[in-house]
Amino acid sequence: MSEIEARLRELLDERYHHRHPFNVRMHEGTLTQEELRTWIRNRYYYQTRIPMKDSAILTKTEDPNFRRNWVRRVRDHDGDEKSAGGLELWLRLGDGVGLDREEVASLRNVLPGVRRACDAYVAFVNSHELLESVASSLTELYAGTLMGERIKAFEKHYDWIAPDALAYFRSRTSQAPRDAQEGLDYVNTHAKTEAQQEACVAALTRKCEILWQLLDAIEWAHRRPKLSSRARLREQENLIVLPERAIEINATGREVIDLCDGTRTVNRIAECCREFHPDAPQVEAEVYDFLEGAESAGALEISR
Amino acid sequence: MSEIEARLRELLDERYHHRHPFNVRMHEGTLTQEELRTWIRNRYYYQTRIPMKDSAILTKTEDPNFRRNWVRRVRDHDGDEKSAGGLELWLRLGDGVGLDREEVASLRNVLPGVRRACDAYVAFVNSHELLESVASSLTELYAGTLMGERIKAFEKHYDWIAPDALAYFRSRTSQAPRDAQEGLDYVNTHAKTEAQQEACVAALTRKCEILWQLLDAIEWAHRRPKLSSRARLREQENLIVLPERAIEINATGREVIDLCDGTRTVNRIAECCREFHPDAPQVEAEVYDFLEGAESAGALEISR
Repeated sequence: MSEIEARLRELLDERYHHRHPFNVRMHEGTLTQEELRTWIRNRYYYQTRIPMKDSAILTKTEDPNFRRNWVRRVRDHDGDEKSAGGLELWLRLGDGVGLDREEVASLRNVLPGVRRACDAYVAFVNSHELLESVASSLTELYAGTLMGERIKAFEKHYDWIAPDALAYFRSRTSQAPRDAQEGLDYVNTHAKTEAQQEACVAALTRKCEILWQLLDAIEWAHRRPKLSSRARLREQENLIVLPERAIEINATGREVIDLCDGTRTVNRIAECCREFHPDAPQVEAEVYDFLEGAESAGALEISR
Repeated sequence: MSEIEARLRELLDERYHHRHPFNVRMHEGTLTQEELRTWIRNRYYYQTRIPMKDSAILTKTEDPNFRRNWVRRVRDHDGDEKSAGGLELWLRLGDGVGLDREEVASLRNVLPGVRRACDAYVAFVNSHELLESVASSLTELYAGTLMGERIKAFEKHYDWIAPDALAYFRSRTSQAPRDAQEGLDYVNTHAKTEAQQEACVAALTRKCEILWQLLDAIEWAHRRPKLSSRARLREQENLIVLPERAIEINATGREVIDLCDGTRTVNRIAECCREFHPDAPQVEAEVYDFLEGAESAGALEISR
């Protein structure tokens, strides 16, 4: 094993999202159906970004041989005349857990933290060299094994999901190791200087952070916000008063605050607001944005 | 036919490179073997830019259906496990006219004007929206017919080229109309406002200019430079004296100037310098650059 490969594997041992508490619980079998659904709905956003970042990678080379191999990744996700791609297989996973396919595909209820993490990945690739972009893909070195474990975990713990729905995970058990080997070969060949190797390690570190942040954002949706002990709601004025300042809230904000009693999850609050406003186009997104804003202003505690 | 399609076809009638004098002579059968070889060597540079601009187009969408169709263009040029792509077929055309495949593939003798024109196409796509990028591809509306005429012209006039070598042209007779229809459907659906339609016309105009400039640059290689009547060479000092200023030239420049007697083409001058310096890596490129500089300074006349 090359020195750079050893360094990248060491990094993945420590920081790949197989260690994230949400993933650990997924594989232990202790996620609720709601948590699984939230993960599947939101992780679809990540899936849709993969062929976008792989297309960006294609533009970074003049080498037809490189493109000929890498373009397969775009096809693996988008599918072709002969076979369904990863995006379709992920939607089937959504079908299998009872999600509305149209809603998942619309991406309209994607959590803002998930969106930020995934957009940061595309932005990273758009703004970095080919070598670093390839290195950032090397989370795939661990993805094949993770997918194998995930299939076993789902079959054992979540047997309410039909086996067919797991086709995405199965497809990745072979695709990910092949893609990882290709990426690793590229890095082994092109990361020659110390500076290049450092850049590869930094790129894969950034990618691990992004995957981690994605799961953090999903955990956030299952937390139970309540008004901070530092904050007081002046009901007549729709004002949240903090020691240092007051925050004016609109009618939606007031509805949300009234639901933040520490018993309802972020998800559940969004669902309640949806029930109040069945025809409004963007209710969930508004709820998420309000909660994020109120949390960062110190008006809400969003603990587990 | 939609109004926008009619406008684009009218534009192509007038400005597509089927009307360029070099193309007219190609199809009339009056190009020399040298001219054909120069065209094939240089046009390969354009071929290599096509999958680059198509990859750039892939990054401009989030739509898997669009990507699934468009990615085929990248594959058509790069090839896949099962079939040779357009780049390989073009190299076979080069083989068929006796070009050195390694030299063609290296791109090292590409004329500067050809490089500028092709790079401008990739830059155009990188800096424009999806709609305009798709519209710029619509020279393909005329490419299928042109390829059909080209095959007939080659079979009739250039029968020293083996029929196998024309496989690229044959492949495009079916690919180009299919791609053109796909691009046209996209433009018909998405160019709704007057401003969008104008942008499409402007994009295709720019593309026609680029293809035209490519052939201009190839004609330039067959022109016969001589010292301008306004210029005088001071042999002792390696100085070209013009009425308004003097230009110092280095040893290579001096060799080139001595070859510029109005009988040798740009191509032939580059060949002569290559014979003088068989091991220098970049002789041709240096000759081209010197001639372009001396021409634009008014020291050389590079007429037909």
